[in-house]
Amino acid sequence: MKVNKDFKVGLTQYSCSEDKVSNLKKAREFIEIAVEEGAKVVCLPELFNSMYFCQSENIKYFDLAETIPGHSTNFLSKIAKKLKVVLIVPLFEKRNLGLYHNSLAVINTKGEIIDIYRKMHIPDDPAYYEKFYFTPGDLGYKVFDTEFGKIGTLICWDQWYPEAARLTALKGASVIFYPTAIGWHPYEKEEHGKAQFESWQTIQRSHAIANGIYIASVNRVGLEKQSPDSAGIEFWGRSFVCDPQGVILAEASHDKEEVIVAEVDLERIEYIRRNWPFLRDRRIDSYQNITKRFDD
Amino acid sequence: MKVNKDFKVGLTQYSCSEDKVSNLKKAREFIEIAVEEGAKVVCLPELFNSMYFCQSENIKYFDLAETIPGHSTNFLSKIAKKLKVVLIVPLFEKRNLGLYHNSLAVINTKGEIIDIYRKMHIPDDPAYYEKFYFTPGDLGYKVFDTEFGKIGTLICWDQWYPEAARLTALKGASVIFYPTAIGWHPYEKEEHGKAQFESWQTIQRSHAIANGIYIASVNRVGLEKQSPDSAGIEFWGRSFVCDPQGVILAEASHDKEEVIVAEVDLERIEYIRRNWPFLRDRRIDSYQNITKRFDD
Repeated sequence: MKVNKDFKVGLTQYSCSEDKVSNLKKAREFIEIAVEEGAKVVCLPELFNSMYFCQSENIKYFDLAETIPGHSTNFLSKIAKKLKVVLIVPLFEKRNLGLYHNSLAVINTKGEIIDIYRKMHIPDDPAYYEKFYFTPGDLGYKVFDTEFGKIGTLICWDQWYPEAARLTALKGASVIFYPTAIGWHPYEKEEHGKAQFESWQTIQRSHAIANGIYIASVNRVGLEKQSPDSAGIEFWGRSFVCDPQGVILAEASHDKEEVIVAEVDLERIEYIRRNWPFLRDRRIDSYQNITKRFDD
Repeated sequence: MKVNKDFKVGLTQYSCSEDKVSNLKKAREFIEIAVEEGAKVVCLPELFNSMYFCQSENIKYFDLAETIPGHSTNFLSKIAKKLKVVLIVPLFEKRNLGLYHNSLAVINTKGEIIDIYRKMHIPDDPAYYEKFYFTPGDLGYKVFDTEFGKIGTLICWDQWYPEAARLTALKGASVIFYPTAIGWHPYEKEEHGKAQFESWQTIQRSHAIANGIYIASVNRVGLEKQSPDSAGIEFWGRSFVCDPQGVILAEASHDKEEVIVAEVDLERIEYIRRNWPFLRDRRIDSYQNITKRFDD
């Protein structure tokens, strides 16, 4: 077993604009802050270099996609190398002519892309029309072997699936990052907003508990409207890191741009797994029907 | 699809004694209270008719086990029939000579045992020496076709496993009951108690969220010591029911004997699953490695 090291993770919570150049500049500024605060692995929000364009279905938005490697990852590779930081870079991936994914690249401290992950679970809800844009991922679940040990990644809608967290944890991740773009429909925030936010945080804390791993979830903030007469989405922020028992270590506000930093402590993982040995007692002989759609 | 009906569930939270007769009497009294409050399905705590004997390993405690059907289920069958209530009866099952399980029987309103479930995940921690007593369940995950539709059951340690909740939900349960016996080691309550309780509640609420089902978890209360010089276990109560979004509908205290009642509303399940269509987007083509112990 490769011996990992303790390290700090940094999550950059901010709002995005229509201008890619300014989104890249903002990403750099927030990465620099996180690194100053000691972060060795920094994660940007989902689709970091654009607005959340999935609020409507319009083929012009496919122009936002980039290859990996491409312009944005080249820009961030230089920053990763300069600052000696691992970067998790979620973006709209153009894989081939007319073939697109919601992906992320992990860049190591030498500025090299270690590998990519492609979002496996694709939502489709009013104002989150992702099935129109994103082909479901075909690379399965991933851990990335970084200078700071094995880290796992999933993206947004994946966070509602215990299977995804489990499969990532079983690959030896010490932490799972969830770059995210989730918010309230302004017209239902008052009635449903609290329960929606709490279910989002609860399900992710549960992945930490079930697997004895750290969870680091990064969301954007701000109200994004695609047209003056649309309600838009109010992204709810509250990026957070929790420990392997689900205890929240660092948490951002609902509406401010900020960086949060927390430590991934491998002895804490060992300690929690010794005291709550869930991995020991899994009944792997009895789980085969989990590959069924429904068991009726 | 068989049309289910809305119904109220009742959870009976109390302390147990060494005297089986008084434990049966107490169960009957609490069932009567729940039925008076409108409950149609009532769940007793794990190993309802004895102390939590697993605090030590002693072969004399195998004498506590009963066959199913047997004395306790016969007693409760009469109550179920008389009160026209479905009962979930968790007890120490003697299956054959020297072969024991941590099981439960579900009894319908005619007083008939519909079927049994045998705890699949067996813990073994200081003062929870269950692997000594209980053979792991070999019946898999279960739903029971009752007069009030399909209900699912799991037992205590099962609650830490998202796979168990998923597999039960996929069988069409509207609610999963978790009879439980969990508490604090008194000597670590102050330092770890809050985080332990919160992780217990969080993981169960997450099963409601991930699957769009109700969760009803029943715990015992009270300090149980097997000998005057042992620290004992302080069972932490806090039986609760949450809705398919993880919102808590009813919740008991940490230390009082009480009954809680809440409604399982099938339209609420439909509504939540329409708005949060997690079952639609499961990537069942990618989950096969969940049957691995570790993916290294």
